[in-house]
Amino acid sequence: MERVPVLKIGDILLVSIQIDMEDQVALQLQEDLADRIVATGCHGVIIDISALDIVDSFVGRTLATIASVSRVLDAETVVVGMRPAVAITLVELGLSLPGIRTALNVELGIEMLALSRAHLDVEFDDDEDEADPAAVLAP
Amino acid sequence: MERVPVLKIGDILLVSIQIDMEDQVALQLQEDLADRIVATGCHGVIIDISALDIVDSFVGRTLATIASVSRVLDAETVVVGMRPAVAITLVELGLSLPGIRTALNVELGIEMLALSRAHLDVEFDDDEDEADPAAVLAP
Repeated sequence: MERVPVLKIGDILLVSIQIDMEDQVALQLQEDLADRIVATGCHGVIIDISALDIVDSFVGRTLATIASVSRVLDAETVVVGMRPAVAITLVELGLSLPGIRTALNVELGIEMLALSRAHLDVEFDDDEDEADPAAVLAP
Repeated sequence: MERVPVLKIGDILLVSIQIDMEDQVALQLQEDLADRIVATGCHGVIIDISALDIVDSFVGRTLATIASVSRVLDAETVVVGMRPAVAITLVELGLSLPGIRTALNVELGIEMLALSRAHLDVEFDDDEDEADPAAVLAP
């Protein structure tokens, strides 16, 4: 059976979908990705679909499921590289990929993930400062 | 026709080969990569073959050609993600992929490219120092 490889780059898992997303391939990819997120502790998933001519409702659902599973495992998903024609067809079909963030290419996707992560870090830092009694007591 | 996407990540072009490397696909990939190297000025190419069950002499030759073309365009190529069984079969077939550098995974490939680039930079810096007459005349 064909299998979509999951590549680890720093804190990000990168998936480039090039083969037809049949049922088994999609399920295997979901499983592989979830396993890798847990094994590596990565906080970001980038799915490149620049090789896909068609994104039908099944692929859309698969992407949404992957995004949801990743979110539960504390990783954000960004779909990148969508072709203009694919975007037009998606909207015409009434599929707007709810719950999925998109970026134009891998680099912008990495940037998006880094920014939202930095934003999270800042929030946590603030909380820590407020909650830390030593900080209040220090001269 | 199927096409292997070329992803740009920083100073590196990443290619993940998942489909059968038929003549047309291989030629198209060579062309796409050369075009992208020239367009982006990237100095590194990483080719992930973790999805390939078999690397025959044609794929080996294709990888070698890509590496040679990239070298002429001032970019280094690293092949990553080779499966153990593929490595064993390659050697048994007498194909040792001459002229191709390999690394275990994408991250180690990026590291390898960064190191050899840093090495190059140092060499150039040294040359500059030696050739710069102002440096000799300065007090």
